[in-house]
Amino acid sequence: MFSKVLIANRGEIALRILRACKALSLQTVVVYSTADKDASYVTLADEAYCIGPANSSKSYMNQAALLFVAKVSGAQAVHPGYGFLSENAAFAERVVQAGLIFIGPSADNIRVMGDKIAARNAMLASQVPCVPGSKEALGTDASSLQAMAEEIGFPVIIKAAAGGGGRGMRIVHAPSELIAAVKLTQEEARKTFGNSEVYLEKFLQHPRHIEIQVVSDSHGKAIWLGSRDCSLQRRHQKVLEEAPAPNVDSQLLTAVGERCAQACRAIGYQGAGTFEFLYEDEEFYFIEMNTRIQVEHPVTEITTGIDIVQLQIQIAQGEKIPFEQADVVCVGHALECRINAEDPNSFVPTPGQISGWEAPGGLGVRVDTHIHSGAVISPYYDSMVAKIITHGKDRKEAIEKMRLALRETQLSGILSNIPLHQSLLEDQTICEQSVDIHYLEKLLSESVDRGVKA
Amino acid sequence: MFSKVLIANRGEIALRILRACKALSLQTVVVYSTADKDASYVTLADEAYCIGPANSSKSYMNQAALLFVAKVSGAQAVHPGYGFLSENAAFAERVVQAGLIFIGPSADNIRVMGDKIAARNAMLASQVPCVPGSKEALGTDASSLQAMAEEIGFPVIIKAAAGGGGRGMRIVHAPSELIAAVKLTQEEARKTFGNSEVYLEKFLQHPRHIEIQVVSDSHGKAIWLGSRDCSLQRRHQKVLEEAPAPNVDSQLLTAVGERCAQACRAIGYQGAGTFEFLYEDEEFYFIEMNTRIQVEHPVTEITTGIDIVQLQIQIAQGEKIPFEQADVVCVGHALECRINAEDPNSFVPTPGQISGWEAPGGLGVRVDTHIHSGAVISPYYDSMVAKIITHGKDRKEAIEKMRLALRETQLSGILSNIPLHQSLLEDQTICEQSVDIHYLEKLLSESVDRGVKA
Repeated sequence: MFSKVLIANRGEIALRILRACKALSLQTVVVYSTADKDASYVTLADEAYCIGPANSSKSYMNQAALLFVAKVSGAQAVHPGYGFLSENAAFAERVVQAGLIFIGPSADNIRVMGDKIAARNAMLASQVPCVPGSKEALGTDASSLQAMAEEIGFPVIIKAAAGGGGRGMRIVHAPSELIAAVKLTQEEARKTFGNSEVYLEKFLQHPRHIEIQVVSDSHGKAIWLGSRDCSLQRRHQKVLEEAPAPNVDSQLLTAVGERCAQACRAIGYQGAGTFEFLYEDEEFYFIEMNTRIQVEHPVTEITTGIDIVQLQIQIAQGEKIPFEQADVVCVGHALECRINAEDPNSFVPTPGQISGWEAPGGLGVRVDTHIHSGAVISPYYDSMVAKIITHGKDRKEAIEKMRLALRETQLSGILSNIPLHQSLLEDQTICEQSVDIHYLEKLLSESVDRGVKA
Repeated sequence: MFSKVLIANRGEIALRILRACKALSLQTVVVYSTADKDASYVTLADEAYCIGPANSSKSYMNQAALLFVAKVSGAQAVHPGYGFLSENAAFAERVVQAGLIFIGPSADNIRVMGDKIAARNAMLASQVPCVPGSKEALGTDASSLQAMAEEIGFPVIIKAAAGGGGRGMRIVHAPSELIAAVKLTQEEARKTFGNSEVYLEKFLQHPRHIEIQVVSDSHGKAIWLGSRDCSLQRRHQKVLEEAPAPNVDSQLLTAVGERCAQACRAIGYQGAGTFEFLYEDEEFYFIEMNTRIQVEHPVTEITTGIDIVQLQIQIAQGEKIPFEQADVVCVGHALECRINAEDPNSFVPTPGQISGWEAPGGLGVRVDTHIHSGAVISPYYDSMVAKIITHGKDRKEAIEKMRLALRETQLSGILSNIPLHQSLLEDQTICEQSVDIHYLEKLLSESVDRGVKA
């Protein structure tokens, strides 16, 4: 059992972890870069150590400095937060080798989930649904290619083994186009990458991003805590998240959730984690597992009443998860808006001094932030400055509360994406339906067009 | 069914009601005095009307002005909040006579509960426990006096019928002192008040203040929403409240709660209300019923998940309460600290301009306030400027969260009672036991003594 925790992170998540520690009567040690010396989490911690200059490679990513602070402060456990070293297996290993407890899964677990093929195999072993595809490089035999594509179902995508980042890919919508497309892609791959090997996968045209939160303890108990929908993304960055994912058949969700929990048990997972899926035509397709706390965890906490960060700590203490799967009930609906210091039109970060900050309040409004009036948003880190979370008895009420919460919020001195969130919450499609992962980018491109015409 | 609500109040409760209306997609009309023209609830409302100068008798208490605003704005319902006209039966009557809906109980209900004797009789009719006492003026017959006192149980208190405010009272601890004490009090009462009539009541030495929240609809459905402990009081003003009341037998509480609900059904009560009790030696003694929303309602909301202000509105809409008694489950523990603009030592109000305000945040922290940086606290109204509410899985965690929340809170430009709350949350007796209604005053007098000696 430990009584003092080193929080190896900064910003809102450092404060989030500090709050969880305080609620559990644990002592807190924090680290900060010179750019963060006046941060609220530094002021509120029991002990604070400067570990280097602003550039995170020289401070928050400096493993030796973090381990040194743990040693001199007498901290017995390390919480990595998200980002930085949170999914760095080598760091998790060094923490344990130093005789400390890493508040998160084992280095092995982190490693497996960081390897796409190993992760996929682990998922398939527990029948977690993955994107169907060929297991080996494709040949050119027409009948076997057709059979494989028919089994997967059209449209399919042909991907060069050596490709990536959108290159060396071809979508095939009909059986008649298949053979020619495979040959063409192989030929292009040979020319472009010097390797003609191509694979075949199911192509998802309009998927949603739905994820499942899990917690799993050292006693073999794994529980899933419902779903989140994070389809509203810009350049793969989540913008607005919600729980539960709307319009998903509850039996289907339960089946997938149970398999996620089963996968945790199968790999001996310890801590909190998230299974990310694409979701299309009432089917889930595993993308990856995040082996850390996520930015959007509050929407799950608010709807389930479970403090996930406290649970991470309790699991690391060797405690058993103090509830059963049947006790996990999702009540109402929650939204989270990520407030970023960025120009709402150009999305260019807007570091600078905050001259005024007034948080929204009232029943069903939660604010997680490290900022305050006078705080300086430095250009060195993530532009997210606050998370506003609302909870209503249903999605409609959560939206109404968020609309008012955003109006109540006063953030001056820097530009923020609050106007973007306000426009999203007035968008009829977003308010009434479930949108896919391309929706926001499409909406933004149309908005720009409208802007030009106006 | 109404779609536009006039909020006949100011400050944090005006904003609280506005938030509930917005969550229900209702339009809001607010009123303000010249002193409140820059208040946040004014800015956030759909319509706002100035109804007079700062003195509340010329604005918030001006019934004609309020009814006029309702008429010109087209509001179809009036929410009175707490204080001001919230328990004024004549106002409730005028609202209804003007063809509007009063969001609260009927004028008759308000009247009955405003009359101590009528209220007591209503309670006795539903077997709600009251303070035992003589129903008629006492004579001087020794044996009947002794019998009566024995039945009530010592200590008893003898009260002059014409007395009040602490005058004309005498506590009797033993049977042997009774007759002399009655005669002496009668004689004093005759000299002081010109009326020798005295009564006899059970004397509670160390009672706690425990109250039960109820909601009751127009369909005869009444439900109690658990208990609150508000024993920490200074000069009859609640300072720190919590839910549920700790260390009360749950069967006893359920029995009393059910009788409160029964009393609501018996008198045809409509809306939210609070039954206030003194509690001593595992017995409840009814004091009075408040026929309005109370300042401390958030601790009940946070532990039950029920939005009481929304329910008030829904009940006024003629809707049925959408849950059953068995659905009301109290989860965890909640505290509320009333943050007042007052000197923490002298308790003198400290009106002035707030130069800085930073609200606390995170999971399980709710802030209800109308203040912001730059807001001016005027000397005309209640000194309460914010309510900080914390929710933990148990009382210990709620206390830990409140300690941190108070440290996170930054309020500058005026003095506040935050240091008082911080010292209360470090007081071992408060943190570990249940205290009586005299505890805080006693603690404060001791603190002053310590201060003098130091």
